[in-house]
Amino acid sequence: MAKQKKTAITPTRDENYPEWYQQVVRAADLAENSDVRGCMVIKPWGYALWENIKIGLDKMFKETGHVNAYFPLFIPKSYLEKEAEHVEGFAKECAVVTHHRLEVGPDGRLVPAGELEEPLVVRPTSETIIGATFAKWVQSYRDLPLLINQWANVVRWEMRTRLFLRTAEFLWQEGHTVHETSEEAWKETRLILDLYKKFAEEYMAMPVLVGEKTAEERFPGADSTLCIEAMMQDRKALQAGTSHFLGQNFSKASNIQYQSREGRNEFAWTTSWGVSTRLIGGMIMTHGDDDGMVMPPRLAPQHVVILPIIRKEEDREAIMDYCKEIASELRKQRFYDRDVEVVIDDRDINAGEKGWGWVKKGIPVRAEIGPRDLANNAVFMARRDTNEKQGMNKDAFISGVVELLDDIQQSMLKRALDYRAEYTRDIDSYDEFVSFFTPENRERPEAHGGFAMSHWCDSSECEDKINDDLSVTIRCIPFDRAESGEGTCVCCGEPSSGRVVFAKSY
Amino acid sequence: MAKQKKTAITPTRDENYPEWYQQVVRAADLAENSDVRGCMVIKPWGYALWENIKIGLDKMFKETGHVNAYFPLFIPKSYLEKEAEHVEGFAKECAVVTHHRLEVGPDGRLVPAGELEEPLVVRPTSETIIGATFAKWVQSYRDLPLLINQWANVVRWEMRTRLFLRTAEFLWQEGHTVHETSEEAWKETRLILDLYKKFAEEYMAMPVLVGEKTAEERFPGADSTLCIEAMMQDRKALQAGTSHFLGQNFSKASNIQYQSREGRNEFAWTTSWGVSTRLIGGMIMTHGDDDGMVMPPRLAPQHVVILPIIRKEEDREAIMDYCKEIASELRKQRFYDRDVEVVIDDRDINAGEKGWGWVKKGIPVRAEIGPRDLANNAVFMARRDTNEKQGMNKDAFISGVVELLDDIQQSMLKRALDYRAEYTRDIDSYDEFVSFFTPENRERPEAHGGFAMSHWCDSSECEDKINDDLSVTIRCIPFDRAESGEGTCVCCGEPSSGRVVFAKSY
Repeated sequence: MAKQKKTAITPTRDENYPEWYQQVVRAADLAENSDVRGCMVIKPWGYALWENIKIGLDKMFKETGHVNAYFPLFIPKSYLEKEAEHVEGFAKECAVVTHHRLEVGPDGRLVPAGELEEPLVVRPTSETIIGATFAKWVQSYRDLPLLINQWANVVRWEMRTRLFLRTAEFLWQEGHTVHETSEEAWKETRLILDLYKKFAEEYMAMPVLVGEKTAEERFPGADSTLCIEAMMQDRKALQAGTSHFLGQNFSKASNIQYQSREGRNEFAWTTSWGVSTRLIGGMIMTHGDDDGMVMPPRLAPQHVVILPIIRKEEDREAIMDYCKEIASELRKQRFYDRDVEVVIDDRDINAGEKGWGWVKKGIPVRAEIGPRDLANNAVFMARRDTNEKQGMNKDAFISGVVELLDDIQQSMLKRALDYRAEYTRDIDSYDEFVSFFTPENRERPEAHGGFAMSHWCDSSECEDKINDDLSVTIRCIPFDRAESGEGTCVCCGEPSSGRVVFAKSY
Repeated sequence: MAKQKKTAITPTRDENYPEWYQQVVRAADLAENSDVRGCMVIKPWGYALWENIKIGLDKMFKETGHVNAYFPLFIPKSYLEKEAEHVEGFAKECAVVTHHRLEVGPDGRLVPAGELEEPLVVRPTSETIIGATFAKWVQSYRDLPLLINQWANVVRWEMRTRLFLRTAEFLWQEGHTVHETSEEAWKETRLILDLYKKFAEEYMAMPVLVGEKTAEERFPGADSTLCIEAMMQDRKALQAGTSHFLGQNFSKASNIQYQSREGRNEFAWTTSWGVSTRLIGGMIMTHGDDDGMVMPPRLAPQHVVILPIIRKEEDREAIMDYCKEIASELRKQRFYDRDVEVVIDDRDINAGEKGWGWVKKGIPVRAEIGPRDLANNAVFMARRDTNEKQGMNKDAFISGVVELLDDIQQSMLKRALDYRAEYTRDIDSYDEFVSFFTPENRERPEAHGGFAMSHWCDSSECEDKINDDLSVTIRCIPFDRAESGEGTCVCCGEPSSGRVVFAKSY
């Protein structure tokens, strides 16, 4: 992409993608770093986006029979220890509570006091604490399936953090379900994955590939991890959601047993699944451009901003009345599950600065209204995704707003699908594979190759070699892997039952 | 209250009120204790109630210009130390994070490792961490007022806990606002108190007294704490929400300065305010009876349960169709901001047990439907609050449901108002005061006197003496205190400018 004009964000995506990302988060007023290592402050505009994500997902969960509940923030150390792989996966990066008060120490400063008999871990995920509760709730097959979701904060002590993408504390939902049979638990694991895919594509306008993780990339303690993977505009993959088939590992660790229809005591089959505030990072990197954030209308906190342009004080009342009338007509309409949401920004600041503020925040539609628009019964409309601007008849603008929002939503998805298609390639030789993932080979060094659809022999040796050589991992094994046909491993030449998705990743 | 019939809850309120409370929470499936000291599991039926509380309050906050955001779970120890009274109030009972990983120790068990340079406190409330952020956000009077709310979990290491009423971890909302002037901050503090009162009365059907706390009962670091206080059915007071005028204490501690209209640097004026999952405890103790929970319709997760009574298998389809038709007609109607919410409970369990289950859960309306109802185009309706039951024509039931729910909502409020009136008394002599609060003097030893409206000389000596003698505190100083007329302190006989509210409390 050649640099053609002054952009609102410096640097541009081409110039320095990671820094562009940070600048978009800042310019769009979505979040900022706090003074607490790795913990972010989610600002009102970013939090409103998260609220809309929650509403959309929560509805889908409830429609499929799930209910919400809330479990403790703290996990006794001994609970974590119950599942060997699980503790191995999370012990290295968890916040440990060891004391329950602060006391004045010898130097007059406060020091931790009241040491706990058993340290508590701030939940990095809740399988073990929820499992202990489920063991009490589940007695008989009549209690199953148990379909629970929790909206909560979790903490993983990450050393290198980035707003939304990887933070020490983040917000998420974690589903935890219990089933009679392996088949039912598998069905649930897939159902949720499909639901995540639908949400990513229909709400976030972010296309995703679905499939299974390799053994190395699995959730600690799971028998299988399914995932949705999206391509960002630097062509790296973002794991945007996971759904885990936990087999009987956690039911055995937590002793979740039920009396079967045949009267026998059986260990139950469980699943867990989650998406987090990381989704916001995914939206920024899928849709953002060199002028800032671009929000998909279905999740945008506001759909339309009306910007009154008041040059003479005597025009103020008439222009404001006209703006309010338009806002009121827009708000009577429904866009999916919400009324069309409109903000009139009449702050007394520089008009250009004000307009750019909304561009950077990514509001889908801007409508400027000055004295001439008032005289002509018109509005001057700009859509954020394409940057298209046009004077329009007021009534046409009002009656067309839902269609406009829908067109923006669909165009954003299509553009992201096209982008992914452009940078997804079947690759059969290791030389080409290496070249694809070597930045120096491309006109845009900041970007990475993309998704390489390549054959793999299913060995962790080849997986490790590719990771060591190129920092490229298998993002997922597509469910329809076999449809790509048999071949030979791109790394070692041994037989492969079909292509898998390789990429650099966040 | 004489014992007349078998009740679903044992013991009854009269027999053992605290134990009755625990049994209602259990029987209504609202929450349970976890294995983590003082932390509760909020079960789906209890969490659904909390979700409705959130929706109602959140709407009120947004209508008054507040926006949501999210701030870190952890507070650096040094932040807490910035405000002397504040740290004094919270240091004694806070969860302290001292390490950021677990490692295998000499005995093969995990031990805390990676000690933090500065301990972190799990937020007991967020004035200090939010203040540090606001100091960056606020530069000029143009940035004010700043009206932020957060929905979050907080932790206070309470030694004696009780489900919903006092738990180590609880869920709440905490509002934090910043203003140019003392007057504006006071206006906000009062606005929120009025909003809490409205919510308590109109949504929860729980009448509350409003007023100001004495200096002893203030939030640590506040210049003034306003509160809503409700009377429970053991006649103790429950502080159900607080709104704090923080003066410039926290803006000075956190350095929240702004450039005024006159170009001077000024410290801002701040407020904070919150209600928590404690509200659920308040609803149980205001409305619950000896058969369990009674839910106010505006917050009940479901409004109506339809109970098909199927005696012969050949009737099943016809009865179920009839039930579904009624449910569908009910759901088309609106009760306040929601569709009427209906559940059809066709679980194949004992009909009596099933019906009692819903009684204990407190669903406002039950509708039993058996073969005779089907034949007569009827339903057999029971309302939870009055226990009134009647056969009704189906169409009358359907068309009257919104009115019925509204009548239940209003009746519950009226009953609670009557209860409070019955046990609120003007008391002018200390003998009578002592007698009022002495359990042995009454026919129901489990209950306490109620609200004593008595004169007070404004001295902490009298306040302390009454507390020491009787464990009775001043719940609030009514805003309209002067209207009760001048008098003499119930304790010492010195002059008083008006009556204040004394009670035992949770």
